[in-house]
Amino acid sequence: MTTMLQTMLGLELPIIQAPMAGVQGHALAAAVSNAGGLGSLPCAMLDAAALKAELTALQAQTTRPFNVNFFCHAPPAPDAAREARWRAALAPYYAEHGIDAASIPAGPGRRPFDAEAAELLAAVRPAVVSFHFGLPSPELLAQVRAWGARVWSSATTVDEARWLEARGVDAVVAQGVEAGGHRGMFLADDIATQVGTFALLPQVVRAVKLPVIAAGGIADADGVAAALALGAAAAQVGTAYLLCPEATTSTLHRAALQSDAARTTALTNLYTGRPARGIVTRLMRELGPMSDVAPAFPLATAAIAPLRAAAEKRGSGDFSPLWAGQNVTGCKAVPAGELTRELVARIPG
Amino acid sequence: MTTMLQTMLGLELPIIQAPMAGVQGHALAAAVSNAGGLGSLPCAMLDAAALKAELTALQAQTTRPFNVNFFCHAPPAPDAAREARWRAALAPYYAEHGIDAASIPAGPGRRPFDAEAAELLAAVRPAVVSFHFGLPSPELLAQVRAWGARVWSSATTVDEARWLEARGVDAVVAQGVEAGGHRGMFLADDIATQVGTFALLPQVVRAVKLPVIAAGGIADADGVAAALALGAAAAQVGTAYLLCPEATTSTLHRAALQSDAARTTALTNLYTGRPARGIVTRLMRELGPMSDVAPAFPLATAAIAPLRAAAEKRGSGDFSPLWAGQNVTGCKAVPAGELTRELVARIPG
Repeated sequence: MTTMLQTMLGLELPIIQAPMAGVQGHALAAAVSNAGGLGSLPCAMLDAAALKAELTALQAQTTRPFNVNFFCHAPPAPDAAREARWRAALAPYYAEHGIDAASIPAGPGRRPFDAEAAELLAAVRPAVVSFHFGLPSPELLAQVRAWGARVWSSATTVDEARWLEARGVDAVVAQGVEAGGHRGMFLADDIATQVGTFALLPQVVRAVKLPVIAAGGIADADGVAAALALGAAAAQVGTAYLLCPEATTSTLHRAALQSDAARTTALTNLYTGRPARGIVTRLMRELGPMSDVAPAFPLATAAIAPLRAAAEKRGSGDFSPLWAGQNVTGCKAVPAGELTRELVARIPG
Repeated sequence: MTTMLQTMLGLELPIIQAPMAGVQGHALAAAVSNAGGLGSLPCAMLDAAALKAELTALQAQTTRPFNVNFFCHAPPAPDAAREARWRAALAPYYAEHGIDAASIPAGPGRRPFDAEAAELLAAVRPAVVSFHFGLPSPELLAQVRAWGARVWSSATTVDEARWLEARGVDAVVAQGVEAGGHRGMFLADDIATQVGTFALLPQVVRAVKLPVIAAGGIADADGVAAALALGAAAAQVGTAYLLCPEATTSTLHRAALQSDAARTTALTNLYTGRPARGIVTRLMRELGPMSDVAPAFPLATAAIAPLRAAAEKRGSGDFSPLWAGQNVTGCKAVPAGELTRELVARIPG
């Protein structure tokens, strides 16, 4: 069985490695692409120099198709009052860690896709450019399309899938609520209405004429087979790769993923300002995982950074974003290529 | 392919019709059982006389195995202050509908499984007795087991599945967050940690040695096949049956299920005090779907009842619990037996 999406891209396996900013770079992407899946390079936290370096390294390690992934949020206007409320909420933690709050710079922490990035990509011509949080401007999109890249984006509802189809994307990633990391939601901001993969995937498949990539809770070969049974053209797997040697997941994050704590995740906006799923930490427990006080994405990040650094220095993940989906049982400390091939073991021939 | 669960019960098809209090009785259960699935009679809203009548009617309409379902919550102590806050929150709605709040009786609205119900069941000997919100007392459970009934209960987390296995249940219903109606959660009360079917099901299958029934978001034959691919012994389907002629779903509820509104559901505690998934209504939008003010389950119901009645009288579902899962695309106004047989069309032979 080969899906149309595989044929379009020349993909041997219907497996997409989910882009995961902060825990992987070119090495994981190359390993997955070389195994016949589609590796992904997360670019949301890279400046131009780092993006260029990562692209160069990725190209050196694989000749197969790969995906580069960008966030495309509209940068928010800084809001001094909100930032002050946020820092006030964190004040007890600053005191606990001996951090001088006045010394903490404000700053974005994540960059949206821009003309500079588009220009860098043009030299590399990745097979797929995928976006999270909607799509960039039509001008930027045209730049990407100019060299023939396929454009993908994430949908967390049927409405978002239809919105993306109307704007000409080549495939939709149906991101069920089980997925780790940032929700791709962009037409709504109420997490109460987010949908599980089992319900979202077949509805998106029915609603659009595009290939649909299933994401969220897919951890092993059974999960991949089930996603294809529900109409997916490919399965996107993230969390399961976090223990692979090619991932840059921190020791602390790796330990958390292998602990009982990993069974309890929640959507939280505390780390960046947008809801993202991670293992429940002390910060999430004490402030509540979703807070009205956290600044708009991505401005929440800056005030957390020194707390995270101080806590991690003493081996604690209390203030770390321990991104993970709702099913960590597929995490294996094996080479990513091996994991990729295992994921297709149950696809009916 | 026949699962062990089917063999144990003599079930032709691995389809369980989800018990749905308030929208179905014996007619739907009988139709599903007669088609080879397992019909379910929801008993949470039946007093002894109604329970007896429903059981008699069900027995008259089928000789196949069926399931009777009960809630087993501990009735809460009435809390006058909380009830007063709740009624204060609803006061503007009472005024709008010309309802005299002082005339509204308080009352439970749902009854837990008790000795009287167990005695009635003993005369009927249903093949399966299933519970929601944990399990009743060991004494009541022993009464049920005395005539050889299989005992099932719902798990919304791996911990709940293990808890149920340790207490000797015969099968676990893994209820993913997509499911309509009440969450079966009983070890935790934080909906932030509830898990999607795609992630929950394989983890429960791995965690317990019992047959696992998949519930939540399963709407059609592809969904059933996917659930079995993830290790389920059977698929429990609820929402898809709501338009069947044998269901007692109100005209208003049927219309809502067929409208675009049905694409947006949320977990709400406003209607009963416990989180349950339904189509987002005016009440849910205006108070927020989850409220700290709602009394403990099932005490929230009484104060809503006259608003619901008044609104429904003028054709509005603004105050009605329009229970539905996150995937209504499987709802069909066809006889339940026909729907049941359609659900198994994609199971690999």
